[in-house]
This record gives sequence, C-alpha cells and structure tokens, in this order.
Amino acid sequence: MNIGAAARAMSNFGFRHLLVVNPYQVAFREARSAMGAADLLAQAQEHYSLAEAVADCNLVVGTTALQHRDLQHPLRRLEEGAELIRQEVKQTRIALVFGSEKRGLSNEDLSHCHWLIGIPTREQHSSMNLGQAVAVCLYELIRQPGALQPAPRCEGTPAASGDLERITALTLQSLKASGYIKEGAESSTQEKLRRLIRRLNFSGEDAEL
Amino acid sequence: MNIGAAARAMSNFGFRHLLVVNPYQVAFREARSAMGAADLLAQAQEHYSLAEAVADCNLVVGTTALQHRDLQHPLRRLEEGAELIRQEVKQTRIALVFGSEKRGLSNEDLSHCHWLIGIPTREQHSSMNLGQAVAVCLYELIRQPGALQPAPRCEGTPAASGDLERITALTLQSLKASGYIKEGAESSTQEKLRRLIRRLNFSGEDAEL
Repeated sequence: MNIGAAARAMSNFGFRHLLVVNPYQVAFREARSAMGAADLLAQAQEHYSLAEAVADCNLVVGTTALQHRDLQHPLRRLEEGAELIRQEVKQTRIALVFGSEKRGLSNEDLSHCHWLIGIPTREQHSSMNLGQAVAVCLYELIRQPGALQPAPRCEGTPAASGDLERITALTLQSLKASGYIKEGAESSTQEKLRRLIRRLNFSGEDAEL
Repeated sequence: MNIGAAARAMSNFGFRHLLVVNPYQVAFREARSAMGAADLLAQAQEHYSLAEAVADCNLVVGTTALQHRDLQHPLRRLEEGAELIRQEVKQTRIALVFGSEKRGLSNEDLSHCHWLIGIPTREQHSSMNLGQAVAVCLYELIRQPGALQPAPRCEGTPAASGDLERITALTLQSLKASGYIKEGAESSTQEKLRRLIRRLNFSGEDAEL
C-alpha cells in the first residue's frame, strides 16, 4: 500500500522513475495493479540492492525526520534540501531515497547517501506515514511553478554512485588485504568508508582516474 | 484509513483539532484505535453537518485540485492560500475542509467556504489520496519555522460561520415567504445565497446587526 501511495503522489506531482529495492513480493504485485498509478507502477524498476538502484545517479539524497539524532551525514531541512536539488537537477541524475515505514533507512542505506533531507515534523511525533512523507517531499520540489527542469546529461558532472561504489569496494579490498580491518568490524568500516568517499565530491573524471 | 492518515499528519505537523462530519461509523471507530495518533483521534469531534462543524470558525477554506474548473469561489494556489491563512490565524479561528476521497467536496460543502485552496498537481492526474492531500496542505502551513502562532480570540474579528449560516437561513426563509424562490430551485438558491453571504466579509458586529 505504501508503494502504491508513493506512486500515486509521484504521478500527482509529475515524477516518473520509481525504483524499489527488495519489495515484499506479494504486496508489490498487488500495488502494481492499484488504482490511479498503473503506468508508473508497471514501469517501476525492481532492484536487489540500493547500490544497484542508485548506480547511475550522481547525487543520492536520503530522507528522515528532522529530529533524527546520531547521524553521520549533513542533514538539511526539507525546503533547503529541495532548493539544492532544484539547482543540481539541471545537470545531474538525483535519487531521493525513502526507507520502509517501520524501520526507515538503515545505516547501511544511509551510507549510500551524499546527504539527508529532514521533514520538519513535531519532535514528539516525528514518524510519518511513508506515502505522506513522499507526497510532502515531492510537493516541496515542485512547489514553485516551473521549478523542475528535465535533466540533460553533460560533461563535468559528479561521479555516478556506481563508480563511487566500485571505488569503495576496491579500497575495502585493499584495507582487508593489508590487515587494517579488525575482526567483526568489516561492515561498520565499510559504511564509514562509503560515507567518506561520498564526502569527497569526486567528479566523473576523478572517479575514472 | 483516510481519517487515521489525516490524524497522523496532523499530529506530525502539530495540528490538534480534528472534526469529522458524518463519518462511516465502523471505519471511524477503527480509525480511533489506529497507531500513532490515538489522542488526537480520541478527541476528534463528530458532527452531523459541515455547517455545525464550522459554526465557530471565522474563515472556512475548502481544498481541491488546482485544475478544478467550474468553481464559484476564489481559488488560490496552495502556497498563496497558506500565506493568507498564516496572516489570519493570529486573530481568527480557521477551518480547513477536505472532502471524501471519492467525491471531494460537494457544491453544498463548497458553499460553506469563503475561498478555496488548490494543490498544484499535474493536470493529467489531479486526484490525490486524501491522507496525502492533508499532509501536503499542513506541511505548507508549518513550512516556515515559527509560522503558525496560536490564535487568541479578540474583538473585531470576522463573523463566525454559525452566524453567517443563521443569516443565510433567515434570508432564505424571507425569500420563500415572498414567493421569490422557484419550485425545485430551493437547494441551488440556498447555495447561491450562502456563497453570497460569505463574500460580504461581515464582521462579528455586522452579523449581530
């Protein structure tokens, strides 16, 4: 139901590319036949990992409640984040990432993000329904008339997430081979490394090099 | 489910007074026990008519898609309407009215409104999920930090909807007694009259007089 609601809000506000990562299959099949968003859902891409889903994106923005503490990422209030996205969208492919309603984005998910958007909910009740969170974020993006332009690809853009992930994997492999990684700490080191590499703002050429 | 979703968005964004008009009883009882918004729903007021629900409000704002044609009311894009509401809320009680998901607000419902807010959805798919529409409108209202102040009652405010409805009823009675109303046209004349009386911007004192 949440995937269906997300698709409906996308259709309402003019967003077309829905990618889902490891959806619960029964629910996803049902959602695909939901009212009012059939085209968008039928064309939704299914991926086995977030890394795979965002591989060709140059900017990956996670979403969370503004009150979320204990974050390793820059957190921007929704309207500021949306302004940045509107500037970037003219030359880059951007993914806006939402977690499941129950658990939100995991630390592993977050480590794939360049930065985060926070929805300004009340501190005492910050957990939003997923479909409503999607609607609010997309509304903010198209709030100004003519705000969102289609994104032509051009030279000099930031590195794609797939390239960053390749660098992450290679570096991790080297760290392992050199004995740097402590036993049991591999996954936390991987997340730390992934965040680090996203902070470096590699261009596509940098990544190649 | 839509009432529950509306209540959850209200709780997320700090709105407390939910009034429901003729809800489907079984669903409403279920919604009252929904996750994450129990207090707000438990305190929700139930009314038999929209007139009764908005009787003590000085400004009644309906919601619709921005593409809605054939309206007898001023229609303002959401961010403009929200700006007006933020100005008014300091001295008046304001109702924001949402219709059912299937049918939206009826002409009779709309005739109780002073003006309407339109959510800027795509022309090709303007019908929003009710819970998402509520979330988007409330988000826009609290989007600027510190935007919404509590509303102390004071002198010189616009007339309450209950007073306007009393004037409407009295005028209609006079029109009937004078033979002005054509057979079969009573309900359309009543809506026309209701809209007219809301356009006059009576103050509370005007209405008394």
